[in-house]
Amino acid sequence: MSATDEYLVNNEAYATTFSGPLALPPARKLAVVACMDARMDIYSILGLRAGDAHVLRNAGGVVSEDTIRSLAISQRLLGTRKIMLIHHTDCGMLTFTDDVFKREIEEDTGLRPWWAPEAFPDLDEDVRQSTRRIRSSPFLPHTDAVRGFVFDVATGLLTEVK
Amino acid sequence: MSATDEYLVNNEAYATTFSGPLALPPARKLAVVACMDARMDIYSILGLRAGDAHVLRNAGGVVSEDTIRSLAISQRLLGTRKIMLIHHTDCGMLTFTDDVFKREIEEDTGLRPWWAPEAFPDLDEDVRQSTRRIRSSPFLPHTDAVRGFVFDVATGLLTEVK
Repeated sequence: MSATDEYLVNNEAYATTFSGPLALPPARKLAVVACMDARMDIYSILGLRAGDAHVLRNAGGVVSEDTIRSLAISQRLLGTRKIMLIHHTDCGMLTFTDDVFKREIEEDTGLRPWWAPEAFPDLDEDVRQSTRRIRSSPFLPHTDAVRGFVFDVATGLLTEVK
Repeated sequence: MSATDEYLVNNEAYATTFSGPLALPPARKLAVVACMDARMDIYSILGLRAGDAHVLRNAGGVVSEDTIRSLAISQRLLGTRKIMLIHHTDCGMLTFTDDVFKREIEEDTGLRPWWAPEAFPDLDEDVRQSTRRIRSSPFLPHTDAVRGFVFDVATGLLTEVK
């Protein structure tokens, strides 16, 4: 059975004990921005319950234009007020540089990406960069309550970045 | 206690039973692209285990330039081959239009967003749009195994979009 078909069987089991629907706006008025890394089950790591918080994820957990788009919708239409940023140790984004990755894609496809891959060499500094991008956005009405963290994939613990 | 501080206490409990670290590349070679909606605990909905799959999330679960960036990294550097797209019923993206949202932001801030908010009126059609965006990207080497689904927030069940 393919992975996807296996997950669809799991989903049928999930639905047998499902009690919904919950309300659309996040109950805890929180948005989490995290890396897409497979090892981070964000709901379990934080003890989030379904309905608590928006969860945004991409490669690196960076604050991209798409992240600003999503946070603008989250804050302006669905009432969130706080943001948690979560990067993590052993991140793939620490293992390459934008220039090399773009050149590899150009060599493979003939096209150089017009977007930045957003690799970064320092976890804590990229969390601070993400915070600054949020604070500098003209489209987000609530940028005071932003806290950044690094998840340790060896221990399961979050450490706050100051 | 603030929501974030409460989640940090939860995280300490999570870490006490944590056994890591797992490998960086997703074990099931899968990337999931889903909406940020608070009611979708993707790991539970699919029975994903930590380490199985990249999980990408944004407002709507749309395929943005940032999604292509993340999938390019996922496929080219971390070995994923399959993609699951997950939209859901009662989505916030069904409740507004790009024009109105952009005008509201312009009236509030004086600045009109230069990005599309990406509202959509039809769930199934937007899943198909997302599939087409993936298939048309020159930067993704693996675009054959893309399957799209709608999660029902009332029943907990996924339905495949054909």
